[in-house]
Amino acid sequence: MGKTKGSFTDLLRLPPGPVDLAAIATDGTPGFDGDKDDGNDALADLAEPLSDLQERLFAERTTGSTRRVLLVLQGMDTAGKGGVIRSAVALVDPQGVRITSFKAPTEEELAHDFLWRIAKAVPEPGYLGVFDRSHYEDVLIGRVRELADADEIERRYGAINDFEADLVADGVLVIKCMLHISAEEQKERLLARLDDEEKHWKFNPGDIDERELWPAYQEAYRIAVERTNTDHAPWYVVPSDRKWYRNMAIAHLLLEAFESMDLGWPKADFDVAGQRARLVEEDPIP
Amino acid sequence: MGKTKGSFTDLLRLPPGPVDLAAIATDGTPGFDGDKDDGNDALADLAEPLSDLQERLFAERTTGSTRRVLLVLQGMDTAGKGGVIRSAVALVDPQGVRITSFKAPTEEELAHDFLWRIAKAVPEPGYLGVFDRSHYEDVLIGRVRELADADEIERRYGAINDFEADLVADGVLVIKCMLHISAEEQKERLLARLDDEEKHWKFNPGDIDERELWPAYQEAYRIAVERTNTDHAPWYVVPSDRKWYRNMAIAHLLLEAFESMDLGWPKADFDVAGQRARLVEEDPIP
Repeated sequence: MGKTKGSFTDLLRLPPGPVDLAAIATDGTPGFDGDKDDGNDALADLAEPLSDLQERLFAERTTGSTRRVLLVLQGMDTAGKGGVIRSAVALVDPQGVRITSFKAPTEEELAHDFLWRIAKAVPEPGYLGVFDRSHYEDVLIGRVRELADADEIERRYGAINDFEADLVADGVLVIKCMLHISAEEQKERLLARLDDEEKHWKFNPGDIDERELWPAYQEAYRIAVERTNTDHAPWYVVPSDRKWYRNMAIAHLLLEAFESMDLGWPKADFDVAGQRARLVEEDPIP
Repeated sequence: MGKTKGSFTDLLRLPPGPVDLAAIATDGTPGFDGDKDDGNDALADLAEPLSDLQERLFAERTTGSTRRVLLVLQGMDTAGKGGVIRSAVALVDPQGVRITSFKAPTEEELAHDFLWRIAKAVPEPGYLGVFDRSHYEDVLIGRVRELADADEIERRYGAINDFEADLVADGVLVIKCMLHISAEEQKERLLARLDDEEKHWKFNPGDIDERELWPAYQEAYRIAVERTNTDHAPWYVVPSDRKWYRNMAIAHLLLEAFESMDLGWPKADFDVAGQRARLVEEDPIP
């Protein structure tokens, strides 16, 4: 971790106000002065402190605390939402993690408000929840593909902000990451999927249909992050052309979020000496 | 992995017929000729092959296959169900894993048949499901604490066998592990929890109440595994006094189960060359 400089939370935080995504480099490595191997080493070094804090959070739920963490991952196809889970989220005990992958909504989900299925997937107290796609799809593909009318899309930005404010009030620390890649990098990743038989299952011709709408998606992202970049649930734009940087940076964001929670260990709510004596002196087992 | 000898599936499989748990060593290391460091190395070596096969299973679900794996973990308090998840299950991509921890049933769950909540937690096709405790609690604590009358307990063994037969018919590969520890080892682990402030949250005075019924629990386990040790869903008794052996042995059981599935990669259901041409020659993005 000697090669990291400063707080990733500060460096990657999208400043409030007008957003220009094209002005944010997709291949940068803010806060890190090193190459791929250094980055992977730095990621591995995060396993221990991150696991320790995650276990404290998991322990804290036994005290009635409602605190928890929600990592929201958004990005164009191939941006690496799955890769972040496989490499960064996987650093902590899977027992304390709740991952939800949001697909195209079902008929039942469509019959409800767009936040209905999201609210059901909010992690319970003590857990690290991860959303692979999220309610933001409803203002991204929802806007680009006109899956709802303009008034409804407009309404959703405010509804999202209110919803996330309620989460925060309920003890949820919300970390929203946009995995920012270039169109060129996406093309290379799609080609890589086509050129490797072991990756064909990850490819869908519809991915190219969506790619054809790249500018419309970038505009939808711009509006979405600008409108929902609140103090209580800010956006982080993570340069993601370099997979190793993306993974390490998000692991750092997680670590810094956990550190900000000032997590201790729950105090015993029983008589420790008494229980010890009972186990040692009265143990009925030979 | 040079220190492993033979198939863990064969070595740890509980033979059909009458069971004598006391005759199975809790501190043995069947199939492994090495110490703790060797065991941890062997466990780490399993990450790559296990991840590869788990990803194939995850990919296979896109073909409409219903195959999946369910790892059932049972054992006395402190036997290490959580440790197995943290060290062995954590070797694979958490996106493909569904972990369910069964606690004392809620009022709603008690209003249904004991298998109701279990059926809801069966992993979807493509997933590795893990049960931390399971329907077996209903014939373990259920029997010891007389939470149901004797006829109902008796009925449950058959109901479990029928239920698991249905799972297998639906494509679920069921791996049932009893984490076998000695009473002495449990005492040491409970003391360790009492002697470390960071572990107090894991301790509950009720753990000692249950320990006082150790012989009754061992008898309940004996009957349960004897009655439900079917060809379609056999029991594995995993010596668990040595945590490193337990973790490595169960990772091996998982690996051997995945290997038995003969998992390939799904074939593309689209025209690969056509999609490639579309991406390269018709790409609208500059």
